Amino acid sequence: MVAGCVPEWQGQILLCRRAIEPRRGFWTVPAGFMENGETLMAAAAREAVEEAQAEVEIGSLLAIFHALRAQQVHVFFRARLAAPRFGVGPESLEVKLVDERDVPWDEIAFPSGVFALQHYFADRAAGREGLHFGEVERASR
Amino acid sequence: MVAGCVPEWQGQILLCRRAIEPRRGFWTVPAGFMENGETLMAAAAREAVEEAQAEVEIGSLLAIFHALRAQQVHVFFRARLAAPRFGVGPESLEVKLVDERDVPWDEIAFPSGVFALQHYFADRAAGREGLHFGEVERASR
Repeated sequence: MVAGCVPEWQGQILLCRRAIEPRRGFWTVPAGFMENGETLMAAAAREAVEEAQAEVEIGSLLAIFHALRAQQVHVFFRARLAAPRFGVGPESLEVKLVDERDVPWDEIAFPSGVFALQHYFADRAAGREGLHFGEVERASR
Repeated sequence: MVAGCVPEWQGQILLCRRAIEPRRGFWTVPAGFMENGETLMAAAAREAVEEAQAEVEIGSLLAIFHALRAQQVHVFFRARLAAPRFGVGPESLEVKLVDERDVPWDEIAFPSGVFALQHYFADRAAGREGLHFGEVERASR
C-alpha cells in the first residue's frame, strides 16, 4: 500500500519533484510505500519528512485510489504543515509550496496524485472534507 | 490488505462462523485478503459471496484497522444484503443474521471485527456513518 498526504500551509500545498524513477522529474505530493509496523497515517507523515523534510499533522482521509494493474492501493490524507519549514529530501529534486492555480497538472507523476489533488481543491472550495474512491487500470500514464 | 463488510438486512447483521484456521469456530463478518486486480469494494463483496453466499451492496467506509505486528490493514465497509438469501460457503461452518443484542462478542474471531462491529452499531444508533481508525499490535487475540 502507498500512503501520502496533501500538506497545506496558508492555502498553498506542498509538492515535490521526483528525483527517482518512475516518473523522475515529475511532481507529486509526499507519498510512498508503507513500511513494517506503521499505520497509514504514520507512513504518510514519514514520507513528508523523507521527501520534503516537512513535519505535518495528518488530517482526514481524502482519497483511496486503486491502481488495478499494479495491484496497488494508494491512500491520501489531508495534512497541515506544522510550520513553513521544508527542504529537499534525497528522493526529491525540488520542493515548493504552490497555489492551486500554479499546480503543474500536466506534470503530476501519477493518476492517483491528480485524483487526490483535484478532490482536495474541489472539497476545499465547497467547504467539505469528503472521501473519494478512484481507480485506474495502470499505475502510471 | 484485508477487505470486509458488515451486511445488514432489516436491522440484523450477517455473521459467519469460521471453518478455517486461524480462529476456527469463531465468528466474523465476511472478510478476506484482496485478490489481484480488484478494488477494496469488489473484494468485500466477493468475500460475502464466498463466505456467506450473499449478494451485498457495498456502502460507506466504516473502519480502517491496522494489525501492526501482522503488517496488515483491514478495511470494512457498511453493506446491505440485496435479499434475505445467504448460505454456508466452504470457509464457514454456519452463517446467520443476528440482532445487535445477540452478537457473540466473546467469540468474534479478530480484534478488527470487534472494532468494526462496535462502531457500526454505535454509528447506527447515532444516525451517522463515520469512518473509524483503529490499531492493535497483534492480529489475533
